[in-house]
Formats: sequence, structure tokens, C-alpha cells
Amino acid sequence: MTQALCDAAGMCGRCNFSLVFVVLAATGFGAEVQKPLTMADVLAASKPADWRTLDPENTLYLELTNGRVVIELAAAFASNHVANVKALAREHYFDGLAIIRCQDNYVTQWGDPEADSPDKKRKVQKAKATLPAEFMTALDPKLPFTPLPDGDLYAPEAGFAQGFPVARDPKSGKMWLVHCYGMVGAGRDNSPDSGGGTELYVVIGQAPRHLDRNVTLVGRAVHGMELLSALPRGGPPMGFYEKPEQRTPIKTIRVAADVTGPERSQIQLLRTDTPTFRALIESRRNRREEWFQFQAGHIDLCNVPLPVKVLTGPAEH
Amino acid sequence: MTQALCDAAGMCGRCNFSLVFVVLAATGFGAEVQKPLTMADVLAASKPADWRTLDPENTLYLELTNGRVVIELAAAFASNHVANVKALAREHYFDGLAIIRCQDNYVTQWGDPEADSPDKKRKVQKAKATLPAEFMTALDPKLPFTPLPDGDLYAPEAGFAQGFPVARDPKSGKMWLVHCYGMVGAGRDNSPDSGGGTELYVVIGQAPRHLDRNVTLVGRAVHGMELLSALPRGGPPMGFYEKPEQRTPIKTIRVAADVTGPERSQIQLLRTDTPTFRALIESRRNRREEWFQFQAGHIDLCNVPLPVKVLTGPAEH
Repeated sequence: MTQALCDAAGMCGRCNFSLVFVVLAATGFGAEVQKPLTMADVLAASKPADWRTLDPENTLYLELTNGRVVIELAAAFASNHVANVKALAREHYFDGLAIIRCQDNYVTQWGDPEADSPDKKRKVQKAKATLPAEFMTALDPKLPFTPLPDGDLYAPEAGFAQGFPVARDPKSGKMWLVHCYGMVGAGRDNSPDSGGGTELYVVIGQAPRHLDRNVTLVGRAVHGMELLSALPRGGPPMGFYEKPEQRTPIKTIRVAADVTGPERSQIQLLRTDTPTFRALIESRRNRREEWFQFQAGHIDLCNVPLPVKVLTGPAEH
Repeated sequence: MTQALCDAAGMCGRCNFSLVFVVLAATGFGAEVQKPLTMADVLAASKPADWRTLDPENTLYLELTNGRVVIELAAAFASNHVANVKALAREHYFDGLAIIRCQDNYVTQWGDPEADSPDKKRKVQKAKATLPAEFMTALDPKLPFTPLPDGDLYAPEAGFAQGFPVARDPKSGKMWLVHCYGMVGAGRDNSPDSGGGTELYVVIGQAPRHLDRNVTLVGRAVHGMELLSALPRGGPPMGFYEKPEQRTPIKTIRVAADVTGPERSQIQLLRTDTPTFRALIESRRNRREEWFQFQAGHIDLCNVPLPVKVLTGPAEH
């Protein structure tokens, strides 16, 4: 036999699971009790309104020689950085630069290999080279927020807003994006205001939550993540590639709105402000697939999957 | 500038941090107050007794064409599985088999690509093909346990024992290994007793804590993890490679005790039952390196680094 583990995306392969969505009239009061569902059940029962289409004006395409990484930008959380990254992309700042760092169980980072050379470094034109930090933003009570039932070790509240993992502190009136797998941020030096988006990184390992509120996160890789996570690791201690030939070249980074026709990726994401998404969280807190012997009864923020449907696009892999 | 993120191993590269270990006579009572330390401080001040040498009888070498993965086995938690994996290695069960699955943000898995073919599959000789599950074991109060101060979302207690991430439930009198990055387990089918070690997997993403108490973990990759985490991902939904040429061949898996002379890797690990390790945990709960603007004040089990010193070995990479 080939033994399998039910996977992070709820696809169980050789595991059997019921696709039947059952509503039982279970009590004398006629209350409707839903049978516990798997994530596959939840997705099979989802309706078109449970899904949203990526906004092309808030989406980046990172084009590598072997495919496209699609990054959704989080304008509600880091508006200046998001605007600046788009401005950098539109002045072709990133085109021809490279992936310069890959540190196991931590981050992959890209930008200008010559950033330390005043002569050779890529010049920023109309965009900004650095920006004031946007580590947190004012907690917007009008922003729909789906809290996790099991709390969080690092923040008073954790959950999802606009498709992103988010922590909130009602006492300080702040909210911030969380460093889960696939989240993209703006590297910086020691000064908090030394980032701005000319160097970006993506989380490729256990959520480095100690970075929360220490770096400005700008979005999340929603497709093509494996093009960044499966790269050869750079040398110790920090995974910077020592030789130019180790670096993966960046063909271009474009704002999706500037890409038209069949080159545009058509991608849908499950909304995170719906009963369907709350059912999905529950389906992951207690796994009902036959393979599972024990149900955890809990889930942490960075273990909740954010389902994606790729409808069309040039870089399927 | 090249912007850097202080890394998961506490090495900050361009970040400055103090290497001075300072004990201050700080109060009128003459109490000694230690200045907060970085992990680099803690390691610099560690003594030989803070380190332990891998027991070769409890260590596996997974030999790939491009290097060696060193796996420490956890006999105190899964004695039968550990004995069986060693028996499988010693009868050369794994030699010439392959890595058959790599699923992004989840697991890399190796074993027999022909496991589903009664004719072609590799025969188990004196070892066992399957074993009763060892998902948990009796909580041994004599086993030194360093609890985490911040608790755990999934278990009543979490901490470290014998160098492994461990959860405990005093009520049920059970303890179990936890699915952190690098942990190695024995794949199984739907029956809980269908594993045994002929297929093994390693965690390469966010800790899949829903697998805790659902699979028998047998150890942890302590060196060479990047040989398993940076592999090309297999196809959806579960990352199994579809074509034989996609699979990475396994040259051999050996018990370190059977490897002598310069081929033996000399590896030391920081003990997890010492004041030094407790100081390390604290140095990671509150990061004192200059780069950090905000100290999390918390840490989760799978974010605590387990430092390794590689003294000698044939497969440095």
C-alpha cells in the first residue's frame, strides 16, 4: 500500500470521505442540526457568492522563468507600502532583479543584488526608496472580521479580514497582518522606517510570529507559492546566495491591472466573512475524514486554509 | 542597502547585537539581575555540559545523491516503531527506494514507489510491515520536561523532552511528540495500525498539529533538512510525483552506529533540560537584537530553535 496523510488542503486522496451534506431534523423542537462536515463538503456546498475575484488593481504578478507567483495586496493594512510596491512595479524597478535569499524554514527574499553598491544599484524613480513603517493600523470596527474560536498565543484576537490572517488588540485599538505561510512583507534594516518595498520576502516555514508588528506586511502569495518555497537554500546563517548564478532571475513584477487578455490570471478566493468560511474553520478544527482517529478540537490562525480556484492563466504549474 | 530579517536561528547578519553577558548588581538588596540576552549571547555562554552528542544507535542517516539527512530517533516515545525503522534500515529495505511525495507547506514522504503492486513491491524481511499505533505513550514523570511558559493551543502542556517537542495531558496520563517542522513520522492508511515505518514523512511547513495523536512520530531531522524541504513539489492534490523521473532516489538509510570512521557525522545538540535552554526560550520570547522594535512576549512550541553543532561529517552542505 502507499500510505497517505490527509493533506493541508483537505484533499485526502486515498482517504474516503462523505460528500453528502445532511441537515437532520434532530430534536423534538424541530431544530436543524447539521452533520459535521469535512472541508470538501463545505467547498462542495459553497455558492458563487462565497467566492470573490481578485481585484487586478490589488494584485501583483511576480514572473519567474518557470512560472508566475500571484500576490494579493493588502491595501487596508499597509496602504502606503502597497501603493509604493505598485509604483515600483509600474516603473519596472524589479525587472531583471533576482531572488537573493532563501533561508530554510524562514523566508525567501527578492530585490536588488547590488543594493549595497551606490554605483550599481537600481535607481528608484518616482516611487519611494523608503517609507514610514506600517506595522499596525487602526482597528477598523467596520472591517468584517471572522475571529478564530481558539484564540492565539501572540495576540488578544486573531482571525481573518478581507482574506488575510489578522490579529487585533481592542485595548490599543490596533490591528495587524500576521506572518503566516505565504505572507509577503517589505524587508528593512534596523531603522523601522528603512523599508518601503524595494526588497520583499515571503514566509516559507513555520509562522515567524516574532516578526509580527516588526515588519510591514503587504500581502499574500495566493498562487505559485511553490516557485518560492522549493528554491535551493542559500548559505548559513541567513540564506543569502553567495554566487550570482545561484540567484533566480526575476523577469518582471507587474500589477495585474496592467496585464490584459489571456495573460491575466483569473483567480477566485473563498471569502472569509461568510457562514461558509466559518464552517470551513470548524471542518478543520475537527477533522471528519475517515483517516482521522483523533480530532484536535482546536486550530491556530496559520493552519486555516484559504481556498483558491484558478480559472485561467498562462502559468499553470 | 540590503535589507535583512533577523533569522530563525538567531543569527542577525547585518543586525548588531551585544555579545556581552552582563550580570548587574542592580538593587540595594544585592540581588543579581541578568541583563536580557539574545540567543547568540546564550549560545556564546553555553558550556560543554549544555550539549549532548547524538547517540549513533538512535540516529539514522538518509543518504541522497546530494547529501545526508541526519535523523534523531525518539525511542522513548515510539519504541516499537523506532526499533522497526532500524530493523528496516539494517535489512536495507530503503536502499534504492525514493522520495515519492512533496506537498507544499505540508510533508515530504519517502518509501516504495511500487508499494501498491503486490508483485513489484519491496519485500519486508525480518522487520515488520506494520505495527500497532504508537500515537501516544504513558506520561513518564521521571522524564525531564521543560515546559513552555506560554501554553499551547492544542494540548494542556507543551514543552521539550530529550530534545523533542512534546505535548502532555496530565489528566489522561499521556504524552506525545508534536508535528513541528522537521519531525519525522510513519505514514499510514486509514487503519491506525497500518503504519510501521516502511513509509516515512517529514514536516516541511506550518506545523500540522491536526496530525498529532493521529500518526506515530519516530524522530526529527536534525541536519540536512533542506535536502527534503527544497524539493520540487509534486502535483495536486497531495504532492505525489506522477513520473518516476520526478522522484529523488534514496541511496541508502543506515543506522549511524553501523557507519564508522570519517563517514560518521559528529553532531552535538543543545540539551533541552538545562537552565541554558530555558534562557534560550526566553531569548526567543523577547527578542533583544537591535533589529526588533517589538517583543512578542510569547513563543509557540514549534518556533523554539533546537541548536545543532556539526563537528564533522562527510556531507556538509
